[in-house]
Amino acid sequence: MSAGWFRRRFLPGGPLPAPRPPRPRASPVPYRRPRFLRGSGSGPGTADAPRRPDARPVRSPARGRALPWNAGYAEIINAEKSEFNEDQAACGQLCIGRCEFGAEEDREWLTLCPEEFLTGHYWALFDGHGGPAAAILAANTLHSCLRRQLEAVVEGMVATRPPMHLSGHCVCPSDPQFVEEKGIRAEDLVIGALESAFQECDEVIGRELEASGQVGGCTALVAVSLQGKLYVANAGDSRAILVRKDEVRPLSSEFTPETERQRIQQLAFVYPELLAGEFTRLEFPRRLKGDDLGQKVLFRDHHMRGWSYKCVEKSDLKYPLIHGQGRQARLLGTLAVSRGLGDHQLRVLDTNIQLKPFLLSVPQVTVLDVDQLELQEEDVVVMATDGLWDVLSNEQVARLVRSFLPGNRDDPHRFSELAQTLIHSTQGKDDGPTGDGQVSYDDISVFVIPLHSQGQRSGGH
Amino acid sequence: MSAGWFRRRFLPGGPLPAPRPPRPRASPVPYRRPRFLRGSGSGPGTADAPRRPDARPVRSPARGRALPWNAGYAEIINAEKSEFNEDQAACGQLCIGRCEFGAEEDREWLTLCPEEFLTGHYWALFDGHGGPAAAILAANTLHSCLRRQLEAVVEGMVATRPPMHLSGHCVCPSDPQFVEEKGIRAEDLVIGALESAFQECDEVIGRELEASGQVGGCTALVAVSLQGKLYVANAGDSRAILVRKDEVRPLSSEFTPETERQRIQQLAFVYPELLAGEFTRLEFPRRLKGDDLGQKVLFRDHHMRGWSYKCVEKSDLKYPLIHGQGRQARLLGTLAVSRGLGDHQLRVLDTNIQLKPFLLSVPQVTVLDVDQLELQEEDVVVMATDGLWDVLSNEQVARLVRSFLPGNRDDPHRFSELAQTLIHSTQGKDDGPTGDGQVSYDDISVFVIPLHSQGQRSGGH
Repeated sequence: MSAGWFRRRFLPGGPLPAPRPPRPRASPVPYRRPRFLRGSGSGPGTADAPRRPDARPVRSPARGRALPWNAGYAEIINAEKSEFNEDQAACGQLCIGRCEFGAEEDREWLTLCPEEFLTGHYWALFDGHGGPAAAILAANTLHSCLRRQLEAVVEGMVATRPPMHLSGHCVCPSDPQFVEEKGIRAEDLVIGALESAFQECDEVIGRELEASGQVGGCTALVAVSLQGKLYVANAGDSRAILVRKDEVRPLSSEFTPETERQRIQQLAFVYPELLAGEFTRLEFPRRLKGDDLGQKVLFRDHHMRGWSYKCVEKSDLKYPLIHGQGRQARLLGTLAVSRGLGDHQLRVLDTNIQLKPFLLSVPQVTVLDVDQLELQEEDVVVMATDGLWDVLSNEQVARLVRSFLPGNRDDPHRFSELAQTLIHSTQGKDDGPTGDGQVSYDDISVFVIPLHSQGQRSGGH
Repeated sequence: MSAGWFRRRFLPGGPLPAPRPPRPRASPVPYRRPRFLRGSGSGPGTADAPRRPDARPVRSPARGRALPWNAGYAEIINAEKSEFNEDQAACGQLCIGRCEFGAEEDREWLTLCPEEFLTGHYWALFDGHGGPAAAILAANTLHSCLRRQLEAVVEGMVATRPPMHLSGHCVCPSDPQFVEEKGIRAEDLVIGALESAFQECDEVIGRELEASGQVGGCTALVAVSLQGKLYVANAGDSRAILVRKDEVRPLSSEFTPETERQRIQQLAFVYPELLAGEFTRLEFPRRLKGDDLGQKVLFRDHHMRGWSYKCVEKSDLKYPLIHGQGRQARLLGTLAVSRGLGDHQLRVLDTNIQLKPFLLSVPQVTVLDVDQLELQEEDVVVMATDGLWDVLSNEQVARLVRSFLPGNRDDPHRFSELAQTLIHSTQGKDDGPTGDGQVSYDDISVFVIPLHSQGQRSGGH
C-alpha cells in the first residue's frame, strides 16, 4: 500500500521482541520471516535478495539460508526489501497440537504421542503503513495466534462434524443433530480460528506498539493449507487468486474505504461523535464548495446503494468521511484501507479524531477445496500486495503464469522465477507479455504457491 | 410468510384511506390492487377468484374487472385471498412526470406537455404478518412513494449520465468528470429511488397504523420495468427469479434473521440495551440448558462467519436473539423476517422489547438489463411469496415453466395459467412435474412476467 504519509511518524527501532512469552513447549518448527527466499520446488531452498528491478536490477548473490520447513513449494520475491521495509511476509509449516487447553496430564500425554499433530502450511503477506512496526509484529506473531486458536478447536476439526461440546481431549458426541441442522463443518472452525487469530494479533500489536512508543498498521493476507483445503483470510487490499489452465478465480476481495463505504457510513451514523463535527458522512461525487450551497447534488448515505439528489446545506461542505476514488480513496483523509492490524494510535493529522473505530481487524475467509479440484501441475495461487494489482489485472497475471510455467518445467526455481517475472512486469518494461508499460511505484511482494502438492493432504489428518 | 402468531393481535377494519393526500394532478392511470387478476397476454384482462386449490378447488366465475393498464403481461394468482388476506399485491403502469418539484409554472408546462412522461411498469407482492393492515397500506401506497421519488430524479435519469447538479427542469451539466469517475449511471438513481420509496412507505405505514390503532408488518418484493431494465427490490423473504431456456437466475435474495445474523448481532453488540437483559446475542447450535454451564460449546458472535468454542456462562442460557433454523428461525422469538415495512409497534410478547430497531425497510435492488438479453418469447420472471419457495426450488419452478409454456402458446391466458399451475404444484398433488407431494400451508401469491415485450423500451425515453 502506498502510504508515504505515515513514514514521517515512524521511529525506527531494532527488531521487536516476541510479543508473547513462548508457549510452555517449544514450537516444533521455528518460524522465520522468509524475506528474499528463493526455494526449490522439492526441498530446502536458498535465499537471495534481488533489489527492486526498477531501481537497480542487480541481484545480490544467494545467501544460502535454508527454508525453515520442508516444503519448498512456496516462493516469495520481495522487491527491494530491507529488514525494516513496510512489506513483510511469513511462511512455514503449521503444527497443531491436540489438548492445548487440557490439563497437565494431557500435556504429558501429548509429549508421549508426538505424532498426534495436525500439520498444514501457512503463507502471509503484511503491507505496512506508518512504518514497518506493525507489519514486523504481525509477521512475527500472527502464526502463533493462529496455532493457538486452532489448537483450541482441533478436537472438533478432526471429528466428522464438530461436536456441540468440547472438553479437553474428550469429544462428547452430544446433540449431533443440532450441529448437523446448522450445517457446521470442520472448516467453520478453521474460519473461526482465523477470525479470532487476526483479532488476537491486532490486540498484541496494539499493546506492543504502545509499550514501545511506536505507531503504524498493516494489511494482512494469509493462506493456510490444512486438511485438503486452502483457507485465504484477507484484511486489507492485498489479493490472492487461483490460476489454472482454464480458470482465474479470485480468492479474496479488497477492503478499502470504497468497498466498505456502507459499513463505515453506518458507524458514523450510529456514533456521529466519531467525526467530531469535522467530517460529513455523506458521499458526493466530489468535495462540495460554497458555490454548491442550495443546489441539488448527487449524494449517497449509509443505507443507499443507489444515488439520489439532496439540497446542499452548510454541513455538507465539511470534508467527507470517505473521499477520493480508486487508489486515491481515503478514510478520514488519511487511510487507504478499511481492514487490517494495528493503527491503534492513528489519528487524523492535527486532530484527535481516531481512525481505529472505523477499522476492522477481522478478515474475510474464503475456502478452496483443493481435494476436490482435478489439479494440474501448473495450478497455482498467486498472493500479492496491492502494488502488483494496481498495474496487473487478474487476467494479465494469469496470462503471465500460463506463458511462463510450461516453458520452465525443468527449472527447480520456476515458481520463484515466476514471482520475480510478475514483479518485473510491473516496472514498465516492454518485454513482458502485457507490454503496456504500466509502472508500479509501490512495494510489491508476491507468493506463487503451486497447488499440486497441496492436494495431497499433509500429515496428521 | 407464516405468521399465525400475530393474527390474534389484528383488529380488523375497513379498507384504509389513502395515507397521503393525492398529488395535485391526478395520477394518469389509477392504481388498483390486482387480486384475482387473470389478464390476457396482449390486452386488458379479466379477473377471477380461484379458491385455494387444496381447500376447495372450485374457481368462482370471472368478475370481469378490467386490468387497469394496457399491459396484460403480468399475471397473478392469489391463493384463497380475501380483501383482508395477509398477502397483498399491486401492479400497474408507472407514469413519471418531469419537474415534480419545480415551480408552479413548471407544473403548468407539464400539463401542456403530457407526452413528457417516462413510463414503466410496476409489480409488487406484500406478505403481511400480524394482520393484513400493513400489506394493504403498502399495496395502496408504495407505488405512489416510488413515483414521487422517481419524479424527483427523473431529470437525471433521462440524461446520458446523471448530472452532478439538478435544478428544477434545468439540467446543469456541471462536473461531469466526477460523475464519470464515480461511475454513476441512470440506473443508480432508480436504485436510490426504490430505496427511498421503501423507507418513505415504511414511515407512512407507521403513521397510519398508529393513527388507526392497528398493528402489523409485511415483506415487500417489487419489480419495475423502466428504460429497458428490470429493477427488482426486495425487503423480506419473497423471491424473484429469471427463467430462460438455458438459465435460471435469482433476481433477489431473502432477508431473514439467519441471512442477516451478523448485522443483527452487531446491532445488539452496539446497543445491548435493546435486549433488555432478556436475550443473548450469541448464536449456539441449540438453546443452552443448565447442564451446559461450564462446558465448552460451539458459538458465533457478530464478527464471526466461522464457529468457535466458548465456556458456557450463566448469561449464555438466556433466550437467543436469533433462534431456530430455516423456516423456524425467529428474531427475538417473534419474527421470521428481518426486512420489511411496518412493525413499528411490534414487541416481544409480554415485554417492552421492540423489534423495529432490528428491522430494515431498505430493500436490496438488483438490475436486469433486459435490453441486453436476447429474449425469447418464453423468458419470464417469476415473483412469489415465500409459501411457494418453501416447497419448490428455483430449478423445480423453472422446470414447470419450461414444460408448461411451449405447449400452451395459443392460450392467451397461459401466463396466468402457469401462475396457477405453480400454486397447484405446492398443494401435494402428484400430477405435477415435481410430484414429490410437498405441501405448502402458507398463503401464496405469484406473478409470472413475460419479458419479451419488456425488452421493447416502453414510452417516454
